[in-house]
Amino acid sequence: MAQRTLFLLPGDGIGPETMGEVRKIIDYMNAEQDAGFVTDEGLVGGSAYDAHGASISDADMAKATDADAVLFGAVGGPQWDAVPYDVRPEAGLLRLRKDLELFANLRPAICYPALAQASSLKPELVEGLDILIVRELTGGVYFGEPKTITDLGNGQKRAIDTQVYDTYEIERIAAVAFELARTRGNTVCSMEKRNVMKSGVLWNQVVTETHKAQYSDVKLEHMLADAGGMQLVRAPKQFDVIVTDNLFGDMLSDVAAMLTGSLGMLPSASLGAPDPKTGKRKAMYEPVHGSAPDIAGKGIANPIAMIASFAMCLRYSFNMIEEANNLEKAIANVLDKGIRTADIMADGATRVGTTQMGDAILAE
Amino acid sequence: MAQRTLFLLPGDGIGPETMGEVRKIIDYMNAEQDAGFVTDEGLVGGSAYDAHGASISDADMAKATDADAVLFGAVGGPQWDAVPYDVRPEAGLLRLRKDLELFANLRPAICYPALAQASSLKPELVEGLDILIVRELTGGVYFGEPKTITDLGNGQKRAIDTQVYDTYEIERIAAVAFELARTRGNTVCSMEKRNVMKSGVLWNQVVTETHKAQYSDVKLEHMLADAGGMQLVRAPKQFDVIVTDNLFGDMLSDVAAMLTGSLGMLPSASLGAPDPKTGKRKAMYEPVHGSAPDIAGKGIANPIAMIASFAMCLRYSFNMIEEANNLEKAIANVLDKGIRTADIMADGATRVGTTQMGDAILAE
Ligand SMILES: CC(C)[C@H](C(=O)O)[C@@H](O)C(=O)O
Ligand SMILES: CC(C)[C@H](C(=O)O)[C@@H](O)C(=O)O
Repeated sequence: MAQRTLFLLPGDGIGPETMGEVRKIIDYMNAEQDAGFVTDEGLVGGSAYDAHGASISDADMAKATDADAVLFGAVGGPQWDAVPYDVRPEAGLLRLRKDLELFANLRPAICYPALAQASSLKPELVEGLDILIVRELTGGVYFGEPKTITDLGNGQKRAIDTQVYDTYEIERIAAVAFELARTRGNTVCSMEKRNVMKSGVLWNQVVTETHKAQYSDVKLEHMLADAGGMQLVRAPKQFDVIVTDNLFGDMLSDVAAMLTGSLGMLPSASLGAPDPKTGKRKAMYEPVHGSAPDIAGKGIANPIAMIASFAMCLRYSFNMIEEANNLEKAIANVLDKGIRTADIMADGATRVGTTQMGDAILAE
Repeated sequence: MAQRTLFLLPGDGIGPETMGEVRKIIDYMNAEQDAGFVTDEGLVGGSAYDAHGASISDADMAKATDADAVLFGAVGGPQWDAVPYDVRPEAGLLRLRKDLELFANLRPAICYPALAQASSLKPELVEGLDILIVRELTGGVYFGEPKTITDLGNGQKRAIDTQVYDTYEIERIAAVAFELARTRGNTVCSMEKRNVMKSGVLWNQVVTETHKAQYSDVKLEHMLADAGGMQLVRAPKQFDVIVTDNLFGDMLSDVAAMLTGSLGMLPSASLGAPDPKTGKRKAMYEPVHGSAPDIAGKGIANPIAMIASFAMCLRYSFNMIEEANNLEKAIANVLDKGIRTADIMADGATRVGTTQMGDAILAE
C-alpha cells in the first residue's frame, strides 16, 4: 500500500478541536481500510507566532510543500490583533496559498436539506441549493505590489494596494471552472467589475476567449460582481459554478455560505496545477468558517466543515471517490437523524458537542 | 423667493421615464408652493455618447457644476457594451462623482413595512430594517493610478488597478458617518479588509482616531468586509450606519438593498464638502437601481427610487425637511394602499404603471 502523506495545521481557536475529529477518521481509515495515511503536524497563525515569532516557520512550510495534502484548521484571535502586519495570523495562511501556488479555491455552497430552515432566506429559495464558487487565490489585490503605507508628512499617510492579473492566471482559473462545470450543471457565471476595473476588462476577455477556444459546450454568463452579490441574495439557485477573482471571491463566497444556513459546515479545497510528470497537484483543505475564538476550547464547535474538507481531500488529492462519498453521506445521515451541534440546533434535535458529532459521523 | 437650480440628467433605459415623474412633482411644488425650482436638462451615459461621442459633454459638466443639485437617472444598456472603455456609459457617472468631488455616498437600505414580504429574507429579519450605508465615492480602486492593460508579448497581457487612500479621504467620510449616526441610532460599523489590504489597515486606524478625537459619544465597531457581507445576510438589523470604501460600498450596498425587498425603491445621495464660505455642498441624487434596459420604454418602471432621491435632495440640498418628510410619507401611504408597480406586485394589490404611480404619490 502506497503511503499517503498529510500535513495537519490545526492553527488557532477551534482549529485544534475540529482537527481532532478528522484525526479520528484518519486513524479509523488506517486501521480498518489500510488507507496508509501518514500524518505530521505543524503550527500556523497565532500559535506559530507565539512559538517562534512567525505565522508559519520555514520548517513547517517545507513539510507543507512535501506532503501530498495539507489540512488547515483556522487562524486568528483577539490576542494577536496587535502583532505586526507581516507576522499576523493570516500571513501564514496567505504564505501557504502563495508559496504552494494554490491558485484554485473551490468553495461549495450547499444547503443540507435538514438545515434549509436555518437559513435567513426563505426555505424555498435555498432548498437544494448547490453552488460551487471557484475563486482565484494567488493573485489580485491580495499579493499585488506596491502594497504600502507611506508617510506623506503633514499628518497625512497614503495606503496603496495593487490588483494585478496576467492572462495566464485568468486562463487557468477559468479552465478549472469550466472543467468542474462539466461534472455538474454545465454552466459558469463569471463575475467582475469590468465597468470600473481594467482587471475586470481583462478577466472578461480571457474567460470569453478560453470558453470559445476549449469549452464552448459549457454555458457561460457574465455578471457584474455587485449585481452578482444581489442575485445571490435574490435567487441563488440560478447559479451552478461561479468563477471570480480573489477579492470578489472572498466577499461572494461568504455571502453564498451564509445563505445556506450551513456556514459551520462548509468545506473548501485550494488546488495547484497538476505536475506535468506525475499529474499530482499540491492541495490544501480548510473550512470556510474562521477560528471562532469566542467558543474555542469549550468542546462545542461544529467539526463538520473540517470533516467535509477532509472528504474533499479524499476526492481531489487521493482520488478516493467512494470514500469521499461515504463520508459526505455519513454527514448528511447524522444531520437527518437530528444530531446537532449548538450552531445548527433546531427544535426536537439532539444537541451534542464536538467529539460526539465526530463519533456520530464515524459510526455512520 | 430665491431660485433653486436643478440639473436633470435622466440618462438611459428607464431613466427618462422615472425622471418624468419627478418633473411632475417639481412643477407641482413650483405652482402650489412657490418653491422656485429652475431646471435644466442634459445628456449622460449612452444617450450622451450617441449624441456627441462622450459619456457626458463638457458643457453638461459645467451645468452640473453650477447647479445647486443634480438629479441623475440611470446609465447603460446592451447597445453600448462595445463602446471604448473611456466613453462607456458609466464613465459619465464616474466623471460626475469625481469632478464634483462627491465623496460621500449615502445609501439608505430601508424595508418599507408594506414590502417586508417581498424580501428573499424571512420577514422577521427585515421588518423595520433601517440601515444607512455611507460609501466613500471618489477614491479607492475606482480612480487610483495606474489603471492599465499592458501587452507583455507572448500572448500575455497584464491588467493593473490601484487602490489608493489618503488619511484626509478617510477622515472626511468617517466624519460624515459619525455625524449621521448622531441623528439616528448613534452606532457606526466600519468595514474593511485590514487582514489583507494596507488600505484596510489605514482605514481602520483613521476611523479609530477620528472617533477618539471628535465622536467618542458614538458607538464604533469594526468588521472585516467579508464578515460584514455575511452579517448583512444573517442579521441585518444589527446595523445602524455602515461606513466603508468605494468598492466594498458598491458590493455591500447592493446586498443590503436586495435584502429590503425594496430594490426598485431605494434612493441615494452623493455629497461634496460644504463650501467654507457659503456652507453649500455640491450634490447629486440617484436611484440605487440601474437602467433596466429590458423594461425601458414600456411605462412599467417603478419611479419610487427616483422620487425618493428627490426627497433626499429636498432634505440635503435645500434643507426643506418638512417637504422631504411629506414626500416620503406620500410614498409610504401609496404603498400602504396597495398601489404597486409590477416589480413590487403582491396578491390583492392594484397594479399600476410608471405615470399612475407618480400621480398617486402626487395626489398624496
Ligand atoms: C483570513 C483571510 C485572510 C481569508 C481571506 O481573506 O482570503 C479568509 O477571509 C478566507 O476567505 O479564506
Ligand atoms: C454603474 C457603476 C459604475 C456604479 C458603481 O460601480 O459605482 C454602480 O454600480 C453604483 O453602485 O452606483
